[in-house]
Amino acid sequence: MSTLATLQAALAAGDVEVIDLTAPLSPSTPVLQLPAPFANTIALSLEAVSDFDEAGPAWSWNNIHTGEHTGTHLDAPVHWATGRAGRSVEQIPPSRLLGPVAVIDKSAEAEADPDFLLEPEHLQAWEGEHGPLPAGSWLLLRTGWSARAGSQESFLNADEQGPHTPGPSVRAATWLANSPISGFGVETVGIDAGAAGGFEPAFPAHHFLLGADKYGLTQLQNLHRLPATGAVLIVSPLPIVGGTGSPARVYALVERS
Amino acid sequence: MSTLATLQAALAAGDVEVIDLTAPLSPSTPVLQLPAPFANTIALSLEAVSDFDEAGPAWSWNNIHTGEHTGTHLDAPVHWATGRAGRSVEQIPPSRLLGPVAVIDKSAEAEADPDFLLEPEHLQAWEGEHGPLPAGSWLLLRTGWSARAGSQESFLNADEQGPHTPGPSVRAATWLANSPISGFGVETVGIDAGAAGGFEPAFPAHHFLLGADKYGLTQLQNLHRLPATGAVLIVSPLPIVGGTGSPARVYALVERS
Repeated sequence: MSTLATLQAALAAGDVEVIDLTAPLSPSTPVLQLPAPFANTIALSLEAVSDFDEAGPAWSWNNIHTGEHTGTHLDAPVHWATGRAGRSVEQIPPSRLLGPVAVIDKSAEAEADPDFLLEPEHLQAWEGEHGPLPAGSWLLLRTGWSARAGSQESFLNADEQGPHTPGPSVRAATWLANSPISGFGVETVGIDAGAAGGFEPAFPAHHFLLGADKYGLTQLQNLHRLPATGAVLIVSPLPIVGGTGSPARVYALVERS
Repeated sequence: MSTLATLQAALAAGDVEVIDLTAPLSPSTPVLQLPAPFANTIALSLEAVSDFDEAGPAWSWNNIHTGEHTGTHLDAPVHWATGRAGRSVEQIPPSRLLGPVAVIDKSAEAEADPDFLLEPEHLQAWEGEHGPLPAGSWLLLRTGWSARAGSQESFLNADEQGPHTPGPSVRAATWLANSPISGFGVETVGIDAGAAGGFEPAFPAHHFLLGADKYGLTQLQNLHRLPATGAVLIVSPLPIVGGTGSPARVYALVERS
């Protein structure tokens, strides 16, 4: 059988399963809160166009108001100063949006310390166990943080010092920017750690990854259902012309063993 | 090799290609225009949150204003009176959104007659040549209409009698609703023909398909790059809670022969 005939048979038989890594998008989906004087994006809201009424007797539909960076979303290079001359979201080739997925599990560490930072040593240890990160792969940082997605307060986890959420260190962001990955995904509200506004440079994952034509992916769920290697990620942002990012649907194809 | 290892190798070698069937989403993306007294959805607009300025010195991002049914989008059952008790967009199982894709080419007919109607006899002839439509497949009607997508006027193709665009007849919509497909996709602004507001019942593709838990997919492009059978469709609407539809990214996996 051809590759795609084999895939279709495996999907039909349930030997390959489609796992949805996307957070449901609703008005209560957590949204990043930056401190003043920075501006913030809006949460999702729906505005009825018609709802089985005079404006549309047989149909219901809504206008959508949301943010490029609200809910599960992709960060494109032009989102950041370092990637300003790079690709907007519709310019990312689909071949960069489908690829092997590698999962590094730091959920125990993030539960013990919400300020947990991923370091190059963790990535090197992962490669020692699973082999080098493949070219064109997506690295997903599993932290268990999606369990907090029902509450904006718990998800952002801020106090008077600012937010406390896990993410990569400056050194890890540099390491990833020099790796052959297509992108880096997280369960948290953004690809940087909560404390990263105070790092040097500030927001190093944005700074180094988007500056290296690598993409960010946020607010992922169900990472515990993925193996460390062997799954295929399918990242589907809307092709917004000139967009700095987009809400995205994210699926993983996982083989049942 | 496992199914997914084989797929990854084929993607990396270019033996399986990712074809993007999605129309770029911009303020000039054509939008449906219903006659009064019906209400219409909005086109896309972006609203800057910051753009490398005081509101965000190192970053640029936008709020999005658009419609559930603007651009390449999926129609969920709750969009229509007949599917009102059915699934909203986030309730559609991912297994219904990935599947075999069948393409029926009526581009010559639609070029000769913009009011071309797909009939059950066309579908039966297609099945005679290619075999039965597989369970869980997506049927895409290729009409060449996406060549008009650069102009709202040409894309909607309306005169004093209303819009003239191809689509299924009442009989074909009934036939498809009774078939084992997951959904039906088109190149035009909606899954119904331009004249379908005057059919009995009005808008039969919406009426019968959404009432049968089958989904609609619109404003597709690049259908000429798909084989009649053998490709895999990946449909990615945003999981808007309670949504009647959503802008969607649509990819096809195609095997190079």
